[in-house]
Amino acid sequence: MKVHIHVSLKSGVLDPQGRAIHHELEALGFSGVNDVRAGKLIELDVADDTSDDDLDQMCRKLLANMVIENYRIEKLETA
Amino acid sequence: MKVHIHVSLKSGVLDPQGRAIHHELEALGFSGVNDVRAGKLIELDVADDTSDDDLDQMCRKLLANMVIENYRIEKLETA
Repeated sequence: MKVHIHVSLKSGVLDPQGRAIHHELEALGFSGVNDVRAGKLIELDVADDTSDDDLDQMCRKLLANMVIENYRIEKLETA
Repeated sequence: MKVHIHVSLKSGVLDPQGRAIHHELEALGFSGVNDVRAGKLIELDVADDTSDDDLDQMCRKLLANMVIENYRIEKLETA
């Protein structure tokens, strides 16, 4: 089973990487960019019988820093 | 307009970060994890009239390293 974990910074948390990307996009001549936030995308290939609770625990224990980050679990397929 | 850019390593490119996460998940006792790949998620808030071509150029010029990475553009909404 393919699972994508989207990890993004909570709103209000300073995002220097996103700010750097924003700045650089403007320097490259792209106008109309209002905001940029940088996050992580973790692609997991797990056994089909992996429970939602296990996925949740993976995020909470390792993949996301719950103090400053949110995560979203997206199941893609049952291969 | 909210746009998510998913940047992931091309298959065949070594992913030490993904491997470290995989190893650590197993150390935490999560079995059944077959593969882990680590990528980036870049959340853009751009003007509604931003063209697809502009988004493509942003990815090619800055957001993704086309030698080793693929990108996928996902438009979320027209706010």
